[in-house]
Amino acid sequence: MTNTRIYTAALVIIGDEILSGRTQDKNISQIALWLNVQGIRLREVRVVPDVEDAIVEAVNTLRARNDYLFTTGGIGPTHDDITVDAIAAALGVPVVLHPVAKEILERYYETRGGVNEGRLRMARVPEGADLIANKMSGAPGIKVENIFIMAGVPHITAGMLDALTGTLEGGAPLLSHQLGCWVAESEIAVLLRDTEKAHDGCQIGSYPFFREGRVGANFVVRSTDAHILNTCVAALKAGLQEIGREVVDGGI
Amino acid sequence: MTNTRIYTAALVIIGDEILSGRTQDKNISQIALWLNVQGIRLREVRVVPDVEDAIVEAVNTLRARNDYLFTTGGIGPTHDDITVDAIAAALGVPVVLHPVAKEILERYYETRGGVNEGRLRMARVPEGADLIANKMSGAPGIKVENIFIMAGVPHITAGMLDALTGTLEGGAPLLSHQLGCWVAESEIAVLLRDTEKAHDGCQIGSYPFFREGRVGANFVVRSTDAHILNTCVAALKAGLQEIGREVVDGGI
Repeated sequence: MTNTRIYTAALVIIGDEILSGRTQDKNISQIALWLNVQGIRLREVRVVPDVEDAIVEAVNTLRARNDYLFTTGGIGPTHDDITVDAIAAALGVPVVLHPVAKEILERYYETRGGVNEGRLRMARVPEGADLIANKMSGAPGIKVENIFIMAGVPHITAGMLDALTGTLEGGAPLLSHQLGCWVAESEIAVLLRDTEKAHDGCQIGSYPFFREGRVGANFVVRSTDAHILNTCVAALKAGLQEIGREVVDGGI
Repeated sequence: MTNTRIYTAALVIIGDEILSGRTQDKNISQIALWLNVQGIRLREVRVVPDVEDAIVEAVNTLRARNDYLFTTGGIGPTHDDITVDAIAAALGVPVVLHPVAKEILERYYETRGGVNEGRLRMARVPEGADLIANKMSGAPGIKVENIFIMAGVPHITAGMLDALTGTLEGGAPLLSHQLGCWVAESEIAVLLRDTEKAHDGCQIGSYPFFREGRVGANFVVRSTDAHILNTCVAALKAGLQEIGREVVDGGI
């Protein structure tokens, strides 16, 4: 039997550019998908502005009730990058210059005009923190207690996730299987509900769409138990076929 | 002088499909942009699972401290659509069948197989609610107190926003102006900070990018006051030109 404890994570996205609508978030889904593979479930996300009190509130609420807390954004060199200060305030520790981060930045900027006040800001960490490798650009991510402080630019975030792969304790990964069908979900709501009820430990999500002038839906069955998952998928497939529908394995 | 009170909104995104990474959210940015035009600022966003307690907590915290609360997701016909029940629980009111919503659904499904148990679920509302027109598909959105309950599918959400345009009281819209420059933001962090400080009521956001093998950044200056905004933009432009950089109005 694999580890059946459920490991959870939360994500705080820090940035006025998301709340103003200027930038379309891409980190929720990439972090969620990465966490699934680590056997950790993303349970809640908050998007907060570049305001210290808002960051502190979100960080302190979410780190206490999840195994892991990730943050994205606000760790660059400019005045609107206040994540490190806010997280240090949340933890009640001072901000210190990390000597290894300073070395990394000095090396990175050696051929790029040298370090300056703004660039050195990126070597500041909450006291007691470790670094997360950043192979895409100079400034590292930061790990402190159960908090992982990541870049906001999605491809840099991706590199940091890559550096963390396999280092976090997780439980059984959440497995999923998708079926697609040209059916209005409202026609088969009872079938979905009853199938889910009959298979303890499974959730069925229903995701309708409208394409080529027709309505259809994809159904995602999720479970940590492969056997229950397969049984539930088979039952749902049979139920859809019973009302004369063709079912597309993997989704439409 | 225009209304200088700042109107704020929060958004609760309800859906396991966002937290599992299956679906990439598109509602944050479309709702944020729409709110800006109404003179309302999106101040915080939470993404919560299809779990009643999680929805109730987010709704009750955010509706109390914002002028408006929007929710997306969980108002369809299937068993995982629990938003209406959760919001009724948050408000401490019963769920009732809305007679006009029932009529709308009966008419919509007249040529689509008729109403059934699942479809009638979409006429259920928290007691005291009004409807929000949905021109894209049958089921309406719901307005109750300062809460706007919207569909999760982005083009249906867009239709509901359209129906609400001009109906919400807002303040002065947040104006913004973008400048782009082929410069490492870390080179000019001090210029950005000092320019922002010198122009009360302006925020400058710095959004770096890496393209065509070069680093650059866009700078978004935001203010509700057009005069201060223009003065700040001019000062920033002059500062960038002083160090020999070409500035692209509107951004790169």
